[in-house]
Amino acid sequence: MKTFNMDDLIAYCNQYGFIFQGSEIYGGLANTWDYGPLGCRLKNNLKDAWRYFFIQRRDSSYEIDADILMNPMVWKASGHLEGFSDPLLDCKECQTRHRADDLINDFDDTANADAMSQQEMIAFIRSKGIACPVCGKSNFTDIRNFNLMFATRRGVTDDSANTVYLRPENAQGEYVNFLNVQRTMRTKLPFSIGQIGKAFRNEITPGNFTFRTIEFEQMEYQTFCKKGDDEGLYKYFKEYGKEFFQYLGLSSEHLRYHDHEKLAHYAKAACDIEYLFPFGWGEINGTHNRTDFDLARHQEYTGKTMEYFDANTNERYIPYVIESTYGLDRLILAVLCENLVEEELEGGDTRVVLRIQPFLAPIKVNILPLIKKRHADRAKEYHHMLSKYMMVSYDEAGNIGKRYRRGDAIGTPFAITIDDDTIVNNTVTVRERDSMEQITVSVSDLVPYLIERI
Amino acid sequence: MKTFNMDDLIAYCNQYGFIFQGSEIYGGLANTWDYGPLGCRLKNNLKDAWRYFFIQRRDSSYEIDADILMNPMVWKASGHLEGFSDPLLDCKECQTRHRADDLINDFDDTANADAMSQQEMIAFIRSKGIACPVCGKSNFTDIRNFNLMFATRRGVTDDSANTVYLRPENAQGEYVNFLNVQRTMRTKLPFSIGQIGKAFRNEITPGNFTFRTIEFEQMEYQTFCKKGDDEGLYKYFKEYGKEFFQYLGLSSEHLRYHDHEKLAHYAKAACDIEYLFPFGWGEINGTHNRTDFDLARHQEYTGKTMEYFDANTNERYIPYVIESTYGLDRLILAVLCENLVEEELEGGDTRVVLRIQPFLAPIKVNILPLIKKRHADRAKEYHHMLSKYMMVSYDEAGNIGKRYRRGDAIGTPFAITIDDDTIVNNTVTVRERDSMEQITVSVSDLVPYLIERI
Repeated sequence: MKTFNMDDLIAYCNQYGFIFQGSEIYGGLANTWDYGPLGCRLKNNLKDAWRYFFIQRRDSSYEIDADILMNPMVWKASGHLEGFSDPLLDCKECQTRHRADDLINDFDDTANADAMSQQEMIAFIRSKGIACPVCGKSNFTDIRNFNLMFATRRGVTDDSANTVYLRPENAQGEYVNFLNVQRTMRTKLPFSIGQIGKAFRNEITPGNFTFRTIEFEQMEYQTFCKKGDDEGLYKYFKEYGKEFFQYLGLSSEHLRYHDHEKLAHYAKAACDIEYLFPFGWGEINGTHNRTDFDLARHQEYTGKTMEYFDANTNERYIPYVIESTYGLDRLILAVLCENLVEEELEGGDTRVVLRIQPFLAPIKVNILPLIKKRHADRAKEYHHMLSKYMMVSYDEAGNIGKRYRRGDAIGTPFAITIDDDTIVNNTVTVRERDSMEQITVSVSDLVPYLIERI
Repeated sequence: MKTFNMDDLIAYCNQYGFIFQGSEIYGGLANTWDYGPLGCRLKNNLKDAWRYFFIQRRDSSYEIDADILMNPMVWKASGHLEGFSDPLLDCKECQTRHRADDLINDFDDTANADAMSQQEMIAFIRSKGIACPVCGKSNFTDIRNFNLMFATRRGVTDDSANTVYLRPENAQGEYVNFLNVQRTMRTKLPFSIGQIGKAFRNEITPGNFTFRTIEFEQMEYQTFCKKGDDEGLYKYFKEYGKEFFQYLGLSSEHLRYHDHEKLAHYAKAACDIEYLFPFGWGEINGTHNRTDFDLARHQEYTGKTMEYFDANTNERYIPYVIESTYGLDRLILAVLCENLVEEELEGGDTRVVLRIQPFLAPIKVNILPLIKKRHADRAKEYHHMLSKYMMVSYDEAGNIGKRYRRGDAIGTPFAITIDDDTIVNNTVTVRERDSMEQITVSVSDLVPYLIERI
């Protein structure tokens, strides 16, 4: 059984319609990717799975959908205007631009650039004579910090007072609406606000396909609680994240925790869950104890109270926040890496099969008339019948073995063949993707048979 | 029976958690709105309804999810860089900025500013002495065109070559991927590509709540066909749009067609479906025959073929495109306007009720323990049981009548009361929102009873 490396995976995604290069016909736009029909279905199914696991089945759990464009003061309060930047320097010889921390970490992976100040970084680079990865010379400018937020102008004047930003994280949408949600849902602590949406970061670092992109989708989940309950909830959500990944079919040997030693300015504790991609371990979830940092800052910058009134104790206080955030694009990548294999079959043949959980599969059933002329009408009838309940595809081109392979390759759990027996007995052959076993099912039992299994 | 005007509706949306002002605690950001827990559920349900109606149940129909940021050449080819602008002028007296066409149309609604050139507009304004709506004087600058696209910079240099735009429409994502979808889905004309996603327009015109905003979500649907089939498909999608709206529960007397006389540069025919909002008729759908304009322009600007190979006739040609586009935010507004009423009850009481279709309702079932002390445990047990299947709320605060009213006001189709009979007989009382009729249902029948009705 062969697994796929990243180049294989990119080619597979392009070949079968999962993911295309963004603006491909124009030569692309660096680090942007478009989801094709199958990738978009997989994305929708993962969103639904998150909604089930985080919103529907948990108590006091609410999804919101805040705008990408927010009042710019939000980013002043959150610290992003001042602190959300990369340390960059230019090669004076070839005019290429680089991240100082990347240069150091690539040169010596024990150096721990994250712990260095800007001065320490440039001193290290110069003392070690670290070379430009493009031209090989070692002649760099000083380091400057470049903010990672995309800026644009609201309104039609060029007045800088109108500068607004594409949000670099969803979380602030949940924080500024914290009291709106609490009031309208008449809920008590602890409660949670989740959000699925796009965020944008103007990064120069390349990507590993969709792992790091300038435009990406997050599934974020903020739990508001009383100080003192935060540490228990932090542990709980670290565990809950692993449960979620196992529910999606990621195996535990491909998952590990990575506790952060160096913490962001807002965090008391932080831990990633990493997945073992073909290029190595990469973060697919972050759990953060953000304390009362964000809410307190919004209270400071708005002059409006962000306090919760605790009717049990008659106290007023700013809650602590436990954040549990999921990168949707990375999760799609992990699900594909986990499930895509090339299998050897009896007789020496091979097949590509995406062994994805049926509830995540882009297409649930592939309808195949055995002989187009004799069975296509009946097959189309069943296609329409099943389309009321699930995503169905129809394939009449090529021999039946090839059509099975096409369905296997995109993870379709069931293939249904319509043949002479169907015409005579109202039965169809249902073939299961992983076992390749075939059974005969009566047409009248078909819908419940399939629904139970997806 | 009282219906709601726009101010009532805005207050209702804020009170019950449908829609909040964007960045509200910072005084907002003009024309942005955040969806609260109930608005977000309604939005998700409308997306799912669109997916069912347009993607799942139609043949050769594919959803994609292209990035918001695209190669800027896309907007040169589409004509947006040059032509997507508003004619603006400044009042020299009070320094406020206005749309020339709005000034003219507000002054004389028979003047038809849309048909005037820039020179004709300013001549009209000056000859009629049209006054500034802010200061009342008539002393304007010349007209300048301001592009409606939000611009930002990719990368960290201020080089204008790196300017990219927030997409002002989703459609170009479908066009640039047209051959990718055709190739990977191995499909034939006619076929359709749909997309749900955010678009952005830097408009200065205010809003009517969420009707016109700077950030909005579109559900777009492009059908690619052979020239000659375009007119039939154009008619078909005008009809199909009305069918979709009726499926969502919008009544036909609140819907009308508005055929365009003045057409956009890319269109051969265009028609809106308008809904009768409290502020008047407003567009909620547009059907456009965009001919081969967009694909031909992309072929011209990329130098790559956008032709389809027709295996039936052995011809190669650029397809025609019929666009059918839905404003999701406007649709949410229409669904709320259609269904929100204040009813008089027997005895002179009133109730607010959202008579929304059960499949669109944010919450499907409201679980109510009759007496908290005696029935809460059992009620919570059923809450968790039903949460596996649908969105459920739980309410133990206040008398049962008040709790019914809260569920009615947000459109929850069913209220389930747990009382002593539940403990003894394993039955619950199910109350239906619109009729307010109550029936007794055995707990073992509850899940199928509810699923059948939502």
